Amino acid sequence: MEIILASASPRRRELLTQIGLEFTVIPAKGEEVITSRMPSDVVMELAAAKASEVYESHRMQMAQAKTQEADNADPLLVIGADTIVAYQGTILGKPFDEEDARRILNLLSGHTHEVYTGVSLIYQRGEERQQIRFYEKTRVSMYPITPEEITDYIKSGEPMDKAGAYGIQGLAARFIKRIDGDYNNVVGLPVGSLYQKMRQLGIAISMHTV
Amino acid sequence: MEIILASASPRRRELLTQIGLEFTVIPAKGEEVITSRMPSDVVMELAAAKASEVYESHRMQMAQAKTQEADNADPLLVIGADTIVAYQGTILGKPFDEEDARRILNLLSGHTHEVYTGVSLIYQRGEERQQIRFYEKTRVSMYPITPEEITDYIKSGEPMDKAGAYGIQGLAARFIKRIDGDYNNVVGLPVGSLYQKMRQLGIAISMHTV
Repeated sequence: MEIILASASPRRRELLTQIGLEFTVIPAKGEEVITSRMPSDVVMELAAAKASEVYESHRMQMAQAKTQEADNADPLLVIGADTIVAYQGTILGKPFDEEDARRILNLLSGHTHEVYTGVSLIYQRGEERQQIRFYEKTRVSMYPITPEEITDYIKSGEPMDKAGAYGIQGLAARFIKRIDGDYNNVVGLPVGSLYQKMRQLGIAISMHTV
Repeated sequence: MEIILASASPRRRELLTQIGLEFTVIPAKGEEVITSRMPSDVVMELAAAKASEVYESHRMQMAQAKTQEADNADPLLVIGADTIVAYQGTILGKPFDEEDARRILNLLSGHTHEVYTGVSLIYQRGEERQQIRFYEKTRVSMYPITPEEITDYIKSGEPMDKAGAYGIQGLAARFIKRIDGDYNNVVGLPVGSLYQKMRQLGIAISMHTV
């Protein structure tokens, strides 16, 4: 069984490792083209695009490497994921620059927003190929954050590569009042539901590898 | 400013480090004597006992070391904490052995339980001494866990030193459906509300130390 994570995010990598999976990382390179405006559709669309891109290029490589044995290949699972933050109907991605990070953090301060992560799984076993997609939504409530705290937080560098301009698993834990839903979904991958879906696909994941 | 964490828990240490605090660890040794049956009271009582024990012994040491300068001592904050799991009115602590871990995990499987962490802060600044205590409650919903999964999980060794026989920040993330409340509270220390209480006490915590 070969598992590929189609994402460069170190946080997603850590989460898969945390639940005891062995996998390789092949980040998708493609442009993120959004055709939808519903947060849940956007994240599933982007996750599916990442998974498909990596799946196709990997199958092509495998086919070139061993034309004869393609049928005997190990089962393959490709995992794509995408995370966005939504506040009052507006989608907030990664900040463009420090001013944008300040704008986003000001919006979220003292309020409740939603984090969506879409996941796409492509599972190939012999001739059989299944593709499923799902998403998780988590509500996150923040304490009020002062302008000085925002300045400090931006100086730390943490906000810049993160949807919603904060890392719940980092310094921003200071600002988090409560969440409703899956925590790891906010970090970037809902490993609880991912594990359950993998079981439904018939993929057994032992814990002894840990 | 000196900060002391009165707990041996590596998870609490990680959480304080995560939000950017510098501190020393002096675990409390005392017996855990419970006089209450309300989970929220139990955890605050145990947290306060830990904080008081470490505060008193530390003050005594400091007084012996420099009798003259006791008044000029740096401000001191001692943090005590205690975490328990409660399910249908029953308090579940750390498992006694593997059979007990199995019993606890069977109870929690497919259901929603509560995690309580009590925190006690003792803040000394010159002559002034403040002591506050608070708790956070988080609801945790688990997917159904099969007997085989429980056996596997116990074999991993993770359940044995943890209230409720699971580590949400570890392999058990597989089994977690959702939470309502503070995630870090389940890990062992509600750093969001802790940070807010520290600010209310007038303790400034910069992020530049990170």
